[in-house]
Amino acid sequence: MNSRATALPGAAAGLAPGLLETLVGILGTDGVVADSAAVEAVTRTCLPFRTHPSAVVYPRDTQQVQAVLKAAARADTPVWPVSTGKNWGYGERSAVYEAGITMVLERMNRIVHVDETLAYAVVEPGVTYKQLNDHLKQTGSRLWADCAGTTQFASVLGNALDKGRGLTPMADHFGSLCGMDVVLPDGSLLETGGGPAGHNTVRHTYKWGVGPYLDGLFAQSNLGIVVQAGVWLMPAPEKFDFAAFEYKAGPERLGAFIDDLRELVLARAIRAHPHLANDFAMMCILAQYPREMLEGRRHLSEEAAARWRRQHGVARWTFGCGLYGSREEVRYQKRMIRKVLGRYGLVQFIGAAVRDDALGRLVRWAAPKVNRLLGKSPEFTDVMVPAIDLFRGIPTDEFVRQAYFKSHAKKPEHDIDPARDGCGFVWIGPVVPFTSEHVMKALALTRRIFDAHEFDFFVEVIVESARSVILLVGVFYDRHDPAEAERARAWYHAARDAYFEQGYPPYRATAMSMAHALDSNPAAQAFLARIKHAVDPQNLVAPGRYGTPLR
Amino acid sequence: MNSRATALPGAAAGLAPGLLETLVGILGTDGVVADSAAVEAVTRTCLPFRTHPSAVVYPRDTQQVQAVLKAAARADTPVWPVSTGKNWGYGERSAVYEAGITMVLERMNRIVHVDETLAYAVVEPGVTYKQLNDHLKQTGSRLWADCAGTTQFASVLGNALDKGRGLTPMADHFGSLCGMDVVLPDGSLLETGGGPAGHNTVRHTYKWGVGPYLDGLFAQSNLGIVVQAGVWLMPAPEKFDFAAFEYKAGPERLGAFIDDLRELVLARAIRAHPHLANDFAMMCILAQYPREMLEGRRHLSEEAAARWRRQHGVARWTFGCGLYGSREEVRYQKRMIRKVLGRYGLVQFIGAAVRDDALGRLVRWAAPKVNRLLGKSPEFTDVMVPAIDLFRGIPTDEFVRQAYFKSHAKKPEHDIDPARDGCGFVWIGPVVPFTSEHVMKALALTRRIFDAHEFDFFVEVIVESARSVILLVGVFYDRHDPAEAERARAWYHAARDAYFEQGYPPYRATAMSMAHALDSNPAAQAFLARIKHAVDPQNLVAPGRYGTPLR
Repeated sequence: MNSRATALPGAAAGLAPGLLETLVGILGTDGVVADSAAVEAVTRTCLPFRTHPSAVVYPRDTQQVQAVLKAAARADTPVWPVSTGKNWGYGERSAVYEAGITMVLERMNRIVHVDETLAYAVVEPGVTYKQLNDHLKQTGSRLWADCAGTTQFASVLGNALDKGRGLTPMADHFGSLCGMDVVLPDGSLLETGGGPAGHNTVRHTYKWGVGPYLDGLFAQSNLGIVVQAGVWLMPAPEKFDFAAFEYKAGPERLGAFIDDLRELVLARAIRAHPHLANDFAMMCILAQYPREMLEGRRHLSEEAAARWRRQHGVARWTFGCGLYGSREEVRYQKRMIRKVLGRYGLVQFIGAAVRDDALGRLVRWAAPKVNRLLGKSPEFTDVMVPAIDLFRGIPTDEFVRQAYFKSHAKKPEHDIDPARDGCGFVWIGPVVPFTSEHVMKALALTRRIFDAHEFDFFVEVIVESARSVILLVGVFYDRHDPAEAERARAWYHAARDAYFEQGYPPYRATAMSMAHALDSNPAAQAFLARIKHAVDPQNLVAPGRYGTPLR
Repeated sequence: MNSRATALPGAAAGLAPGLLETLVGILGTDGVVADSAAVEAVTRTCLPFRTHPSAVVYPRDTQQVQAVLKAAARADTPVWPVSTGKNWGYGERSAVYEAGITMVLERMNRIVHVDETLAYAVVEPGVTYKQLNDHLKQTGSRLWADCAGTTQFASVLGNALDKGRGLTPMADHFGSLCGMDVVLPDGSLLETGGGPAGHNTVRHTYKWGVGPYLDGLFAQSNLGIVVQAGVWLMPAPEKFDFAAFEYKAGPERLGAFIDDLRELVLARAIRAHPHLANDFAMMCILAQYPREMLEGRRHLSEEAAARWRRQHGVARWTFGCGLYGSREEVRYQKRMIRKVLGRYGLVQFIGAAVRDDALGRLVRWAAPKVNRLLGKSPEFTDVMVPAIDLFRGIPTDEFVRQAYFKSHAKKPEHDIDPARDGCGFVWIGPVVPFTSEHVMKALALTRRIFDAHEFDFFVEVIVESARSVILLVGVFYDRHDPAEAERARAWYHAARDAYFEQGYPPYRATAMSMAHALDSNPAAQAFLARIKHAVDPQNLVAPGRYGTPLR
């Protein structure tokens, strides 16, 4: 596995003569960034890996995307499209190769349509979680959009096309897409969903279309550039509540807990997609790294970590979970969550904290006092409302601030941009069958890899469905320390190899692994290469993305 | 639009010299049918259209599928695969061209695995609804499989790959598939779901895999032959009930009813996927066609239809709907269904009729008496238990008997095979946005087409999701009457053209329309043709299926 960027033949030397002028002709001067310092600034990454495009372009509409592709084709220069490039810790705007054109779609940010009756929106790739959420609020919509736990300025479509995840019952972001406009590598427009817009009333309401289902081809893909898509939304439920859970039982009961959790999901007593965070993952949210506790080590000793956890009143495992539905349904969910999870720890129903009434004010007033009584640090209270809101699809920058966990500066309150600010972190998310046997095995494996590479054990168990969990596993490192960056890179590759070997494939690749995403399945790799070659014989769009040949 | 079969160049003359012997060498004598009378018998269809293969082959395993493809490739003879070919009224085992090899996968009928914990099965294409259901019952499984309203001997995978529908919360059969083994046209094996079996523990539990989602390419498709797939199942709910509903309000309130029905689905007060059947559709189930009431016409007069409907006590619109969940959830569903649907007609909760206890016996004993009091014919009682059972995923041949509705012989009790028995019928299922405006418009359009072609107005409004319905529209005709068969063909093409024109694309094509399935979307047609050519340059597998080029 090669984690260094490859230079594509012909492309490494920069843009072909005249191409820059052509791009400026298409996009205007403010639509093209080619000055190397400016390019460096807009393509920074949190990964211990980066590449440098020759230019970054910002089309404003579909026609400009098409024109750029045609110009790039004539110059045989690859185009790496990203929506907003806020997938921090996965690769941001980094191509897997040097040079070429990076296309950022953040200026294509129209909310084309919201269908209140049928509960969907049609959006462009530049539309952010915040923008969609604000729009729904301002128009008095009855609909909720899901969001991800990342920044509120991330792209709704970009996250969905990367198979990102949210927290509400609509957490499956790719699964919520329906009907796409795609610019193909030859510059032509494909409208999926069984027929072009003019001849089809159901392309955003009926998922599978006529003939083979094509939307799936554009997830984690380089077969085209999605310039618009339908996104299903959910009507606000009659009732909403929130369960805060802390695991207090011994480690020997964690497996039984995992199995019980699956049964709650299978019985739809849990409809949300909670993240079960271990103590260190919680600490990343609540605090900054206590370098003073390292005592000369590279990561905290077990004893230091326990002491630190106790200072903040953090449990071994914590999660929050939204409850949704009619009053009867929420009653059922509460009954089951209390009964089943009550066996393993503390369950508190605190959904009222986000209510805009006397009860809401009371809960918010009481929260710091209750937390103090429970031995918790004040930061617990700070994250309460944002955490509950995430389960109503209200985006926040509260949690992505953890990116600054190992910064030497304090976590900023506003204007969060960890890539710009030099934060180092990298994510890997193996998918694991939702059984105690597999989850415990994968957790133990994860722990061993952290220990071997002397990083602190960070994991969240994300409820993907009743059948799978995703372990969200990450390392925060000091980007100003080359040795630590190298250690982070080594950790990532070791983890990735180990997960593949055990049959737990990561649900997303990063820029430093993407070209090898399908190495474990040569038949799928060959099949996809044939499709890629048929659709993009010049290998123009994002060569190497998700396992297709680089050249 | 050409509804006549095309002869493929080279193929029309029958099998190339030596190919038959090669096939017998691969499959044994009992695996190949080439005698023209025998071929005729196993490839009959209910459509007013048919084609005749040169041979029908029955592989028993993946290796035989691969070997047949390789032999066919050498002889340049196309292979039209079907699972069991029980999609009566859509095309059964008919290729869209004459000659070639038809491959029936009914002997590949292993239930490879049932995962009780994670609620899925892995099955081959010959596995029928009855077989899977019996297996679950015999092993004491906690799981329910969905089935379709068609025969219990239909293929679980075949129906799902055709995007067929069931009735339970798992009604989206294609959506329930996860992870496939596919024999590609070149004879190689592709294992989808993010990696081959040996290197992936989640291929049947995590839907989207790594990289582009490939399963979707094999729905309504000719890009490969699916020889095995995962199918998600549901655990039996804590409570089950059943609502029988009859629409009693005037036609002017039907639109409001449709909107209210959507809101029930959106609020998850309805989790099943009921079929709202019009009076004539109900009559097809309960009776046989009353030729004596035609009074010289080709279809019943409005007056005669009303008289006939009243004789049987059939309402204008009828549906049944399963209720599922915990006791609180079912209480909510009953509350909402009673409250909302009660405005439009009669709601009865009769789920107890399938209980194996004293209450169940009481309901079954009382049913004929209650039905008599309500002015209903005895046949209502006969279909009660099978109808409720369908909503528990228990397949039945009770409803597919309607295929014999226009037969001159009485509907058979057993051994239902309408294709063999010369029944004529054809289905079309336009997808329509789930709003009163669209549904009323589509119903009126449908009615006009029936009237223009002098067939009786048959429609079921299938709740596909909260966002779309499928109008299941069908004609029963006398296959022994060439003029009526021609009229059925004309009706089908007129309906299809009208639905496409209005933007309501049919969710499935029939053998007589399939080659034109993507005519309304030339960009998608061209895109798919490129993929088809890349994956199957010889156009070996099912040329013309779902809109790819015939040759």
